[in-house]
Amino acid sequence: MTAPAKLPLGSSLSEFALIESYFKQGALAMAQTARVATNELTTIALGIGDDCALLQTNGSEILAISTDMLLEGRHFLPGANAQWLGHKALAVNLSDLAAMGAKPLAFTLALALPASDTVWLNNFSTGLFQLATQFNCHLIGGDTTSGPLTMSITIIGSVGNHQALRRAGAKLGDDIWVSGCVGDARLALGALRKEWSISDLALAEVLPRMHLPTPRIDLGLGLRSLASAAIDISDGLLGDLRHLLRASHLGAVLELAALPISATLANQPEIIRWQCAAAGGDDYELCFTAAAEKRDQITVLSQTLSLPLTRIGYTTISTEAKIELIDSQGQALDANKTANLLRSFDHFD
Amino acid sequence: MTAPAKLPLGSSLSEFALIESYFKQGALAMAQTARVATNELTTIALGIGDDCALLQTNGSEILAISTDMLLEGRHFLPGANAQWLGHKALAVNLSDLAAMGAKPLAFTLALALPASDTVWLNNFSTGLFQLATQFNCHLIGGDTTSGPLTMSITIIGSVGNHQALRRAGAKLGDDIWVSGCVGDARLALGALRKEWSISDLALAEVLPRMHLPTPRIDLGLGLRSLASAAIDISDGLLGDLRHLLRASHLGAVLELAALPISATLANQPEIIRWQCAAAGGDDYELCFTAAAEKRDQITVLSQTLSLPLTRIGYTTISTEAKIELIDSQGQALDANKTANLLRSFDHFD
Repeated sequence: MTAPAKLPLGSSLSEFALIESYFKQGALAMAQTARVATNELTTIALGIGDDCALLQTNGSEILAISTDMLLEGRHFLPGANAQWLGHKALAVNLSDLAAMGAKPLAFTLALALPASDTVWLNNFSTGLFQLATQFNCHLIGGDTTSGPLTMSITIIGSVGNHQALRRAGAKLGDDIWVSGCVGDARLALGALRKEWSISDLALAEVLPRMHLPTPRIDLGLGLRSLASAAIDISDGLLGDLRHLLRASHLGAVLELAALPISATLANQPEIIRWQCAAAGGDDYELCFTAAAEKRDQITVLSQTLSLPLTRIGYTTISTEAKIELIDSQGQALDANKTANLLRSFDHFD
Repeated sequence: MTAPAKLPLGSSLSEFALIESYFKQGALAMAQTARVATNELTTIALGIGDDCALLQTNGSEILAISTDMLLEGRHFLPGANAQWLGHKALAVNLSDLAAMGAKPLAFTLALALPASDTVWLNNFSTGLFQLATQFNCHLIGGDTTSGPLTMSITIIGSVGNHQALRRAGAKLGDDIWVSGCVGDARLALGALRKEWSISDLALAEVLPRMHLPTPRIDLGLGLRSLASAAIDISDGLLGDLRHLLRASHLGAVLELAALPISATLANQPEIIRWQCAAAGGDDYELCFTAAAEKRDQITVLSQTLSLPLTRIGYTTISTEAKIELIDSQGQALDANKTANLLRSFDHFD
């Protein structure tokens, strides 16, 4: 239910937010009039509006389910490396499972291809199955047809009862954390789109972060007992954090300078640096909230996973999911600067 | 895992059969090297190659899962009625559940649209939710984006342990049955494609069978304890029966004149009549096998559901899924006639 940063083609994203809300309303209206499921049946624990839907089976298990569709020209450039595409198509779905604290189980693949190109298929399936094998996530079904290059994956994972990391669980005063570093994928995309120019060396360093994101599955599993809420960063940290805050009916204070960024991004001009880190998408890191007393355990988890986990702010009272950006001295950032950042986030939401 | 009859555009279907087998091999290779799932986890009971995949949860339940992708110009004509499309996109997936004897539970929808057209969306979602409500099947998630009109649905249903109707269960000497009547959808498609002309009245009678197929969910549930194997007819009776026979390592004798057809189709010239009935696709009826001693119970089920169930043949020994067509006197059909029929089936497989 997340998708990589959209290329600037076709209709605006706000239109498609409208469409999503359209189907959400239909689904809710139907749920309200539906017959009550019996105890024998699997029931829907969580519908549209989180990283995954949750299905309660009649055992102790909950299944987490998510769907993403990637189109050529919209989510990736024509002629994109097929092996990377195979990786990324599955990675963005695995990332949704990670954000729910779910263990990968299986996926289906619907694939439309302009022609049966065996070289392309070899490369695509290599990237796909390498990642699938790494996370023990099995291809269980699919559909192939001829058409404009399109891949739609539905992924299924498993969480125990009451273990799922929902967006709505954050509490007032919780720390806000982010994994890894953010902004490199956006830096690479901007360079490819000639929004800015960076050195060949810098591009070589950040391109893998755009093309071969690492889904944070182990982190999601480790956070089951630690985090109060989580979301994966597909649209950009500010935008995705806002989804979490809205679901939790909270606001946030965020220290801009605390955002973890790579040395490559740190070398860029300030406006690019913070636009990429705060508002860039496609990172597939996890942003999560946790009570302050979990800090030591989270530090241990970070060491266990050899994955930086950085505290970047805390939740506040706000009915509008307001995010206040502060500097390292705790002072509110210049209003224009904040507005610039939020504009750029809105553009890529 | 079934799709409506493809329009004659783009690459040939045999190429895409190749692709499917490609991913199937990758999935099998991965399964062979995968770590053994623990008892606590949901496990994969059946992977690629049936109407649905089956997931064994840690309760008594098995989940049936299927994916289909529909593209404009490939599976439906540009400008197709949006409400019918909403119906059909879900119906073809429900039909996969029916063929497994599964009870519908939930689905995800990935939708690419050229533009945010509210009239189209209203109509599409009306058709979609009407059918979803009828079968108590809930939209639990999805993804929307701009792009060539494409809809990909993944559906999830529920079957009890050892209740799923697999393709591989047919026994030697079992009766072969088919529900409803077959061939009307193909008659309509051929008329729209000007392969033949039929009267306006005839077209009006068969068009709903093409655009608004009825998934045979109740039949699938009723057959759980009666049928030995089942498949839904999406590619054509002969082609789909052959899938079932291949999975069961059997052949079949089929009485062509026994195929249940509508009065409209019965009025067509013989070659059209039998091509549509035996080799046409898009019917979404169920073809199933059952032991002879189940005949009375199947007749009762037919009456209960007010749905004709017709015995059209029986299974035989064959290592090549051979289907022998006979006339009403039990005589083998003329070889040329059979070849003609089988060629037309191959064309639309």
